[in-house]
Amino acid sequence: MDEVKVIEIKKSVFADNEADANGLRSELKQRGVYLLNLMSSPGSGKTSTLIRTLNLLKDKLKIAVMEADIDSDVDAVKIKNATGVSSIQLHTGGMCHLDAEMTRQGLDNVALADRDLVILENVGNLVCPAEFDTGAVRNAMILSVPEGDDKPLKYPLMFSVCDLVLINKTDVLPYFDFDLERCKENIHLRNPKAKVIPICAKTGEGVDQFADWLLEEVRQWKK
Amino acid sequence: MDEVKVIEIKKSVFADNEADANGLRSELKQRGVYLLNLMSSPGSGKTSTLIRTLNLLKDKLKIAVMEADIDSDVDAVKIKNATGVSSIQLHTGGMCHLDAEMTRQGLDNVALADRDLVILENVGNLVCPAEFDTGAVRNAMILSVPEGDDKPLKYPLMFSVCDLVLINKTDVLPYFDFDLERCKENIHLRNPKAKVIPICAKTGEGVDQFADWLLEEVRQWKK
Repeated sequence: MDEVKVIEIKKSVFADNEADANGLRSELKQRGVYLLNLMSSPGSGKTSTLIRTLNLLKDKLKIAVMEADIDSDVDAVKIKNATGVSSIQLHTGGMCHLDAEMTRQGLDNVALADRDLVILENVGNLVCPAEFDTGAVRNAMILSVPEGDDKPLKYPLMFSVCDLVLINKTDVLPYFDFDLERCKENIHLRNPKAKVIPICAKTGEGVDQFADWLLEEVRQWKK
Repeated sequence: MDEVKVIEIKKSVFADNEADANGLRSELKQRGVYLLNLMSSPGSGKTSTLIRTLNLLKDKLKIAVMEADIDSDVDAVKIKNATGVSSIQLHTGGMCHLDAEMTRQGLDNVALADRDLVILENVGNLVCPAEFDTGAVRNAMILSVPEGDDKPLKYPLMFSVCDLVLINKTDVLPYFDFDLERCKENIHLRNPKAKVIPICAKTGEGVDQFADWLLEEVRQWKK
């Protein structure tokens, strides 16, 4: 296995995460770096979605990935091997989320001067990561078909803070009681402005739409 | 929809959760009530597994269910309608886990003198609930096939605190890259003593084994 850089994240000392997140965002704006915070449940397909997306974007943008995980390096290694994109692993030491200061600890290990886009793969958890602004420009999340179309009703904060919801694993729609339209309605109950893109990271279907959205977002941010 | 009792859980004031959990367990032992703490990711099938299990056990044991959720009553209503078993909803008000004091707030609303078994369906989250002893006799969790067989590597604490792991949604094994044997090995890396039962809550396959395990557990506890 290839080695990747592993950063042990320390607990944040900042009392005011909101101010800290806004400060980080301003700094990223000045440097022309777009930060996306990608959240989801465990096993919804964040890493495989990223691999597809990075392969579509890596010749158009200079990208780095930060993989947050409680205690393993498998995702960062997978990303690096499958895409060649620079990837570091953030170990949260049992912590269930990242805040802005913790995100900054990761960014300190990314050569920001050479990047247009940094993607933060947050800890797999639909609850706590939604409570902490990481300083990202946008929040996106993945909901996978096997999890059920009722999740926006049960995890309201997560869906209300996300600008984009990817509905993944559409290839298994025939085997689950999951109604795409009902799911979209449930998402829009929580956040009427959320953009929803159905994708299948396994076959690649719909991932180009996510890549196009991200490309346009980065272009607007760098203006 | 039938109405169910909804309890708004308040933040715990106890500083020493471990002592509090041990106290609660002793009290349950004296009263002959077995408490099971059931954890999982969002959408792994906790509620549908419970419905199958309750229908197998409700004539053999006096049971109550406590459904913890951030903000909805759908699960408690579903349980009550599908099984007739007494079910209450615990609203955590955004909190990502339950500790012993919060569990006790729920139990205060269950007629314990009439119960052999109380099942606590914890908040859907593979991280935080693992960190807090609820006072339950045993911890069990559900990992569903679509989440992937690598989850024990990525959420080590959850798997190490669970006495029983149910692997759910075995009916979709043909559609996912999930190796049951590799998964068992990964679970036993974290907890060599964990019992593993593959089930399918949709078809009922294997759920009788879980029900038998629970029945024997309750009998031993009441001795």
